[in-house]
Amino acid sequence: MNTIKNFDELIAHLKENNVKKRVAVVWPADEKTPAACAQALEAGFIGAIFVGCEEKLKANEALKPFADSISYVDASDADDAAAKAVALVRESKADVLMKGLINTDNLLRAVLNKETGILPKGNVLTHAAVASIPSYHKFIIFTDAAVIPYPNREQRIEMVAKCACSLHAMEAKGLTSPLQGDSDVLIMPDIEAGNVFYKAITLFAGASTAGLLLGAKCPAVVPSRADSAQSKFYSLAVATMAAE
Amino acid sequence: MNTIKNFDELIAHLKENNVKKRVAVVWPADEKTPAACAQALEAGFIGAIFVGCEEKLKANEALKPFADSISYVDASDADDAAAKAVALVRESKADVLMKGLINTDNLLRAVLNKETGILPKGNVLTHAAVASIPSYHKFIIFTDAAVIPYPNREQRIEMVAKCACSLHAMEAKGLTSPLQGDSDVLIMPDIEAGNVFYKAITLFAGASTAGLLLGAKCPAVVPSRADSAQSKFYSLAVATMAAE
Repeated sequence: MNTIKNFDELIAHLKENNVKKRVAVVWPADEKTPAACAQALEAGFIGAIFVGCEEKLKANEALKPFADSISYVDASDADDAAAKAVALVRESKADVLMKGLINTDNLLRAVLNKETGILPKGNVLTHAAVASIPSYHKFIIFTDAAVIPYPNREQRIEMVAKCACSLHAMEAKGLTSPLQGDSDVLIMPDIEAGNVFYKAITLFAGASTAGLLLGAKCPAVVPSRADSAQSKFYSLAVATMAAE
Repeated sequence: MNTIKNFDELIAHLKENNVKKRVAVVWPADEKTPAACAQALEAGFIGAIFVGCEEKLKANEALKPFADSISYVDASDADDAAAKAVALVRESKADVLMKGLINTDNLLRAVLNKETGILPKGNVLTHAAVASIPSYHKFIIFTDAAVIPYPNREQRIEMVAKCACSLHAMEAKGLTSPLQGDSDVLIMPDIEAGNVFYKAITLFAGASTAGLLLGAKCPAVVPSRADSAQSKFYSLAVATMAAE
């Protein structure tokens, strides 16, 4: 199997393999979330379950061609939408969760709810970002730029578990360059470092990025409000790839 | 006055203004330190005082053309060289300190010595790096990637004091992009973030960097062993500019 090295290859891979996942979208009241979903619907790798905002979305021209792949669930407000979207995941009626116009904290409250949430006991919720950097020859994944501020030893082991190598492991070996190490994954020492890395590669190295939360019953796309529709679209592609 | 936007302009500026500073070089037993000094001697902006390693340096072909701008001080080992170089600064016989083949900790011990050192009482020693990033239109300075691991409030105020703006100040105003902010200086939240920023811009954004320690009686060039001779040369240029 060939390694997928950038977002175009990832999307081509999803198409070739007819991958299609059901995405529960929480309160898509902004502009960019439906725009990203329209792109993913056009590429064919998602079915969308919009939780809330039905009236507005039905008037959205960009979504009209994909009506067959869209369904709606009523919700009275963003928090209600979060609870209902999480319930869809819990009942295996959705494969991916996506944040619309809701604070990440509020969405996480629904995800982490001990009775109705979707975090299996003992799991660690981490944020992973996938970056395509023009000057690097393949995807690079880094964690954690968003959720765990100061990972403890156990949390970091959890982060490293699935990874081939890490920045810290390299440093311990006296290596300092991820390029020399041909790294796939960088485990950041803390959230500040993760955030600075994200800003440095997007602002100065022309990187495109996608981000998702891992550790819950399904991957969750939790873009920040400032992310472009393109970045949200890429995040959907990565989440679709990561979903079971 | 025009703004100096990259290292070539900085070096041209030093030449045009006939800036020339005396650099005390601590134990230059490696290859790259004398090479960087030879470049700076050729550019004309330093006089070199080599502390230790006289015999080896006198045989160095690259230095021979600049014998008139070089003097030597005897030293029995690297620690002795550090103490003697610091003494030259204290006695105002040198304007800049430069680290050769000695651990930064050992050099700092000489700098920070309460009786014979050169840190004025109450001053904070910080590391500042100057980066020329091809995708950014001017120099960007960031601190602290090397000395203060977790700056407290007072130390950060000290760092920000001379700066027009900072990443944190921008974030407080709801801005997240140094490009939008047209920043000159980024104050990093901690040493991990500073280090990650340094690695990200050098590995992925093609940045050239120079670094120096500020806060002591004179600027000090403390490159890491892995830095190129070019980076050490740039650091000498920045330190010369920063020296009184």
